[in-house]
Amino acid sequence: MSSHSAVSAGSEASRFPTSVYADRLARAAQIAQRSGLDGLLVTPGPDLRYLVGSRADSFERLTCLVVPADGNPPSVVLPRLELASLSDSAVGELNLPVHDWVDGVDPYELVSSLLPETPRVAVTDAMPALHLVPLARRFGAVPALATDVLRELRMIKDDAEIEALRRAGAAIDRVHARMGEWLRPGRTEADVAADITAAILAEGHTEAAFVIVGSGPHGADPHHEVSDRVIESGDIVVIDIGGPVEPGYNSDSTRTYVLGEPDPQVADQVAVLEAAQRAAVDAVRPGVTAESVDAAARDVLADAGLADVFVHRTGHGIGLSVHEEPYIVAGNTVVLTPGMAFSVEPGIYFRGRWGARIEDIVVVTADGCESVNKRPHGLTVLPG
Amino acid sequence: MSSHSAVSAGSEASRFPTSVYADRLARAAQIAQRSGLDGLLVTPGPDLRYLVGSRADSFERLTCLVVPADGNPPSVVLPRLELASLSDSAVGELNLPVHDWVDGVDPYELVSSLLPETPRVAVTDAMPALHLVPLARRFGAVPALATDVLRELRMIKDDAEIEALRRAGAAIDRVHARMGEWLRPGRTEADVAADITAAILAEGHTEAAFVIVGSGPHGADPHHEVSDRVIESGDIVVIDIGGPVEPGYNSDSTRTYVLGEPDPQVADQVAVLEAAQRAAVDAVRPGVTAESVDAAARDVLADAGLADVFVHRTGHGIGLSVHEEPYIVAGNTVVLTPGMAFSVEPGIYFRGRWGARIEDIVVVTADGCESVNKRPHGLTVLPG
Repeated sequence: MSSHSAVSAGSEASRFPTSVYADRLARAAQIAQRSGLDGLLVTPGPDLRYLVGSRADSFERLTCLVVPADGNPPSVVLPRLELASLSDSAVGELNLPVHDWVDGVDPYELVSSLLPETPRVAVTDAMPALHLVPLARRFGAVPALATDVLRELRMIKDDAEIEALRRAGAAIDRVHARMGEWLRPGRTEADVAADITAAILAEGHTEAAFVIVGSGPHGADPHHEVSDRVIESGDIVVIDIGGPVEPGYNSDSTRTYVLGEPDPQVADQVAVLEAAQRAAVDAVRPGVTAESVDAAARDVLADAGLADVFVHRTGHGIGLSVHEEPYIVAGNTVVLTPGMAFSVEPGIYFRGRWGARIEDIVVVTADGCESVNKRPHGLTVLPG
Repeated sequence: MSSHSAVSAGSEASRFPTSVYADRLARAAQIAQRSGLDGLLVTPGPDLRYLVGSRADSFERLTCLVVPADGNPPSVVLPRLELASLSDSAVGELNLPVHDWVDGVDPYELVSSLLPETPRVAVTDAMPALHLVPLARRFGAVPALATDVLRELRMIKDDAEIEALRRAGAAIDRVHARMGEWLRPGRTEADVAADITAAILAEGHTEAAFVIVGSGPHGADPHHEVSDRVIESGDIVVIDIGGPVEPGYNSDSTRTYVLGEPDPQVADQVAVLEAAQRAAVDAVRPGVTAESVDAAARDVLADAGLADVFVHRTGHGIGLSVHEEPYIVAGNTVVLTPGMAFSVEPGIYFRGRWGARIEDIVVVTADGCESVNKRPHGLTVLPG
């Protein structure tokens, strides 16, 4: 499946120009040094894709980018069998040394040989215990998380990344615009999800990373995905969908639909939710904290007596990962900076009855924010 | 995509009866105690599916099964938002305590509260650094790998697991049997892979986990997946395909095809490979080591002067993971036992020219082994 979706990737480039990665690697090394580390160890996952444009996804055999903090060139340790996995990355054009290994060689020894003795390292948050445990034993210490080190670098998107997020947003907007073709009484959530999945791919995503169709009472579960429930006339339906466009940046947009004219009380409550989402978007600007954006949405709902039915945080950062820093949540005092990109997605949930959520991805600008999603925010009425 | 494929899962049950998991949990706790541990910590992945039948796949927010070694009931720590992810598992019927948490709560503190102070724990090999680092800091020690603790339990398949592997083998055999419908000169590897992907699903898999179509020179790269190369008359083509059938057990079978009558030297070399694969399968029986099976294949190839072109190990265990213990590789002295299941897949690779690989999944029986794949092993000639 993964190999096939990679093939259907379309014409966009699978990575940025090599100079982008050279710059990111240099900055990562500088930040590592300032953090008192000897180096960063990055196994496959979003951090590896961010730093060298590689979408390698090995698990069992160690593939690891070693970024020394002293400014020496980064290098890559990987199984000889998987050398081809670097071909779509910037490793070749960057002339990074590649240390390949075969069965029988200790790859942790190889990594160790590229660092000082008893090094202080940070590892990517995706590194599995399978590799982290032997590395930590060898180093005699629990590493730090590179997520912390790379946080600022990855949180603040550059122009090319923002452009990719805009393309992703436009692509998922086109899918929402076609919802009336598929979302009808008498069909199952799974039927609708299959059509949405096809449309997500047809509109330029390389993968349908998630498709939530929460109809009627299922809409009251924020993490419901899809089921064989038959959608009924009058249902409120939460549609939360997204996936990556090349080179790997994700869309994520939620709209709430109703099949037939809504009950007036439902319409009123969704109008409050729309106002809450708007208030949070309006609160986004450089210099304010992440938690203040969460509070902006929460306050509007609280004023309408809906505080208790908004059961999750307001948003999450997005980029190469669907969920990444900054999280828009109470307690997160990170200060918003131009280039940060995240979701604003308050929701209201009435257990056993219905739910609603409205979600845009926004990018912090010099004096506010830009939403990459442009579809109408209110309850969208479809034929019932 | 993942939510949709879950829906199309077909009619087989998504897990075994609850008593299977009760037994596995009890045995895991006993093994942990014998290993001098206080408990096992299992985040989403194959170990979690093995122990409680859960296919939860959260990453960012901690979901963790805590199995105390002292025989007290295991319990589950998970985000309140993801309670629904347990619904397809045995957690409910087992009456395991569930400790849900909301944003703002420290889930590592919750895990810690279920264990003695400064506990000695083992963690699943899939646990990401994101969770392992804070847990290790709290415990003041690098945990062990639960993989080691659970190795014997997971390596030796019970009757229900073997039956699932048989169903998976029969399903992928049906796909290979249809290869002539798709594998023709003038089509790209990607075209053929798309048809194979559809057939893997149609024949009863819940997902096409991997589809390798290595034509001509691409067959010489054991880790090639698929490309836009146009397949030519006369090409040797390696097709290595598989995926899970419910409740999660994987198929994995490779056959080598030729489009038109093969060059006699190629045919001779593939015949040697077939003999090597046969020799390795014949070597499988209780009491011999994993490395002796690897040697059986390697010796046949070496006798024909092909030692240098067999560049990988002979096989890997299979079950809920496509790659797991036991690995059939030089240096692995694990003794084969009835119920172990693994691939036997020698290959020969001529860089820039062509390659061939033959792969069956076998299950160790009382006096030898059973292959779950029944397709002819030699070079399969299709119209060129």
